Amino acid sequence: MNQSTLSKEALTYFEEREKLCELCRKFYEKGWASGTGGGMTIKVAGDIALIAPSGVQKEELQPSDLFAVKLNASLNHGCEIIDKPENLKISACTSIFTNIFNLKASAASIIHSHSVNAVMLTKITKAQELTISGYEMLKGIEGCTYFGSHTIPILDNVEHECDLAEDIGKVILQYPKAYAVLVRDHGFYVWGKSWQQAKIHAECYDYLFGAIVQEKSLQALSLI
Amino acid sequence: MNQSTLSKEALTYFEEREKLCELCRKFYEKGWASGTGGGMTIKVAGDIALIAPSGVQKEELQPSDLFAVKLNASLNHGCEIIDKPENLKISACTSIFTNIFNLKASAASIIHSHSVNAVMLTKITKAQELTISGYEMLKGIEGCTYFGSHTIPILDNVEHECDLAEDIGKVILQYPKAYAVLVRDHGFYVWGKSWQQAKIHAECYDYLFGAIVQEKSLQALSLI
Amino acid sequence: MNQSTLSKEALTYFEEREKLCELCRKFYEKGWASGTGGGMTIKVAGDIALIAPSGVQKEELQPSDLFAVKLNASLNHGCEIIDKPENLKISACTSIFTNIFNLKASAASIIHSHSVNAVMLTKITKAQELTISGYEMLKGIEGCTYFGSHTIPILDNVEHECDLAEDIGKVILQYPKAYAVLVRDHGFYVWGKSWQQAKIHAECYDYLFGAIVQEKSLQALSLI
Amino acid sequence: MNQSTLSKEALTYFEEREKLCELCRKFYEKGWASGTGGGMTIKVAGDIALIAPSGVQKEELQPSDLFAVKLNASLNHGCEIIDKPENLKISACTSIFTNIFNLKASAASIIHSHSVNAVMLTKITKAQELTISGYEMLKGIEGCTYFGSHTIPILDNVEHECDLAEDIGKVILQYPKAYAVLVRDHGFYVWGKSWQQAKIHAECYDYLFGAIVQEKSLQALSLI
Repeated sequence: MNQSTLSKEALTYFEEREKLCELCRKFYEKGWASGTGGGMTIKVAGDIALIAPSGVQKEELQPSDLFAVKLNASLNHGCEIIDKPENLKISACTSIFTNIFNLKASAASIIHSHSVNAVMLTKITKAQELTISGYEMLKGIEGCTYFGSHTIPILDNVEHECDLAEDIGKVILQYPKAYAVLVRDHGFYVWGKSWQQAKIHAECYDYLFGAIVQEKSLQALSLI
Repeated sequence: MNQSTLSKEALTYFEEREKLCELCRKFYEKGWASGTGGGMTIKVAGDIALIAPSGVQKEELQPSDLFAVKLNASLNHGCEIIDKPENLKISACTSIFTNIFNLKASAASIIHSHSVNAVMLTKITKAQELTISGYEMLKGIEGCTYFGSHTIPILDNVEHECDLAEDIGKVILQYPKAYAVLVRDHGFYVWGKSWQQAKIHAECYDYLFGAIVQEKSLQALSLI
Repeated sequence: MNQSTLSKEALTYFEEREKLCELCRKFYEKGWASGTGGGMTIKVAGDIALIAPSGVQKEELQPSDLFAVKLNASLNHGCEIIDKPENLKISACTSIFTNIFNLKASAASIIHSHSVNAVMLTKITKAQELTISGYEMLKGIEGCTYFGSHTIPILDNVEHECDLAEDIGKVILQYPKAYAVLVRDHGFYVWGKSWQQAKIHAECYDYLFGAIVQEKSLQALSLI
Repeated sequence: MNQSTLSKEALTYFEEREKLCELCRKFYEKGWASGTGGGMTIKVAGDIALIAPSGVQKEELQPSDLFAVKLNASLNHGCEIIDKPENLKISACTSIFTNIFNLKASAASIIHSHSVNAVMLTKITKAQELTISGYEMLKGIEGCTYFGSHTIPILDNVEHECDLAEDIGKVILQYPKAYAVLVRDHGFYVWGKSWQQAKIHAECYDYLFGAIVQEKSLQALSLI
């Protein structure tokens, strides 16, 4: 990346822009962002966040491809766009991201994953929540213990992703200890107080979703 | 790659040649092109297309290894070879590729994958078509929605790949909204209006094929 | 890594520090250390060991992030910390690692993995040990043969990882031929007389754990 | 690799040595050589072959780590060692490799894989052979067709790998169209007229072994 060709806007928060692109490449390799799926946002200041654009290959993102927004709950999509890359559309997740930032003051980064583990998990239950217990990996999620259990909400999917924002807002208030919301047939949203913690939480939840689907299969085969 | 050693032909469309080779390496890593399987073509001008050769390791392709053809439906294989690399055979998919380009004016790139997900899917159904619904990932395929369903044709495999060309032509006309054709025991052909869209469509269909096989298995275990 | 910026401590055993970080990256790629899980230690001298810190991304470790400890069974955690990186916490595995070093004089390196294969294996048995037979891969574990069998202990998980140290010490004495201890719902600890052998043992056990879970599933489907 | 530090022997066939090491790294990444398992040989002249050493990490091999042998069926292990790297042991597969070279004049490279797909396949059958049909991927194996079928032998495993040499010799003569021999609980040996074809054959057989295990599982679930 030749920084001299970048606009003043793209140079602002350049390091965070590079980190967000690097993380999107890693998430693509994990299968969380195939087919342009998934997304990510990182807060770079109190009310400024970088957001990956919509409908493009996430593994090919460049620092200048990101949107910068100023959070403002009174506006449409919960923000004002302060840096818009040419020819790109802002993420369909934008109002979800801004609503999570609005309701969880400690959230500094949010990841949206299309993980098959998460999708399969939502298909093997009709419930509107998932309770996880019996895994050491729970301890990677803030506030969780091995002997305790951890419950996160499951929402049904909708046609237009932005229509999930209100429901996600509601379940976030109902499940104050959850760091993720599953969306049936779709994937999950997960956050943390830093991009590091958002990534750690994403890895822990994804590990748990995959393990639970395998555990249920082994139970169905009478092996557990 | 030392460009100075390349022929005038190999230097023409050099950037697109490099992209096609890079994509073949990525498809190999995904398991779509093991054992020399799979293939790809990119249109570089109105009636000129680059095609990966037959029977060689796709992950080792160099820009000078590609065939360039001029599409011409009245000729054998639907094209005239205008640049033939030494000691290489043109893809067995050639007449399939040219037939798809001929019938789908918007198609600018076609991928052929030997994905195990696709093969397993064709084995768990005797039908000549697959209807997909209930996955957010459908939205990565042009024209599809989450609440809608999407149907693509399944052809039985034949001994000589070129003999599929005519049948693929027929089903493309029968399923105008499909961007892929499954071939039983074999894999699938998938296209898009650019190499980016062909790759995105390939990733979405492959994700869906794998997810459906897992979903059916979980149903058979009474978990869904 | 610009060595000139490193402290005298971090430069000591610099090569071994780099190797430990490189191995942690590889273990992360294998899925053994997602979400900050897993850990590793390498003895660099008779009674000095390097230990990866707790609660950080293992794939991002730098040589200066490691703790150096002097083994001393009479102290808390079985060691005295002789080099403590700033702002990092010593591994929750420390007293387990030091206890293994204390009881197995030949152990020069220990790996802790959160492998899903290991976790699933502990879920399909209620026993407190696992006997493995019928795999060539056994021969990668020191002292094992193909026609023989190999038994390792399984401990139940506890809330605080350090509380495993005493029980691990007991089962190590009970199973003198084992190079690994499984911990239910959690993962496994594995060692060797060098980092190479610890890694080889880890790969062999992990391959065997995954194969056994698949073998039991195929048996449940009446395929074996 | 600083060639100036290499012995005259290691510099002989240097390019082929590098290729063999590169292939071992790739096979390790595919899971064919974990825990020092697996092996490979490439003929570099009429009766000279390079062989990977025994019991070391295959993904770390350097060109100077390889043995060079002169094939001679009248000698122990079927060869005379003409270049022996210090402190390394020749592969336990040596007499198997030399016997295959001896009986299949066209074989120029042999790969030994500890693939879990192969091991599981040998566990779901009690037969001493495997017949494969119904997969396009068969066409990647020389002489095979889609509508035809292809049969390869399965041997029971033995304690000492070298004791397989005689039995492998027998089944190679009984199955003249096979390019691979499965060994129960262990893996497979596969060859080709060049390292390229040996690798292509290995990928095709491995794809087929994995697909057949999955196909049988889907049958057991009444999905096929």
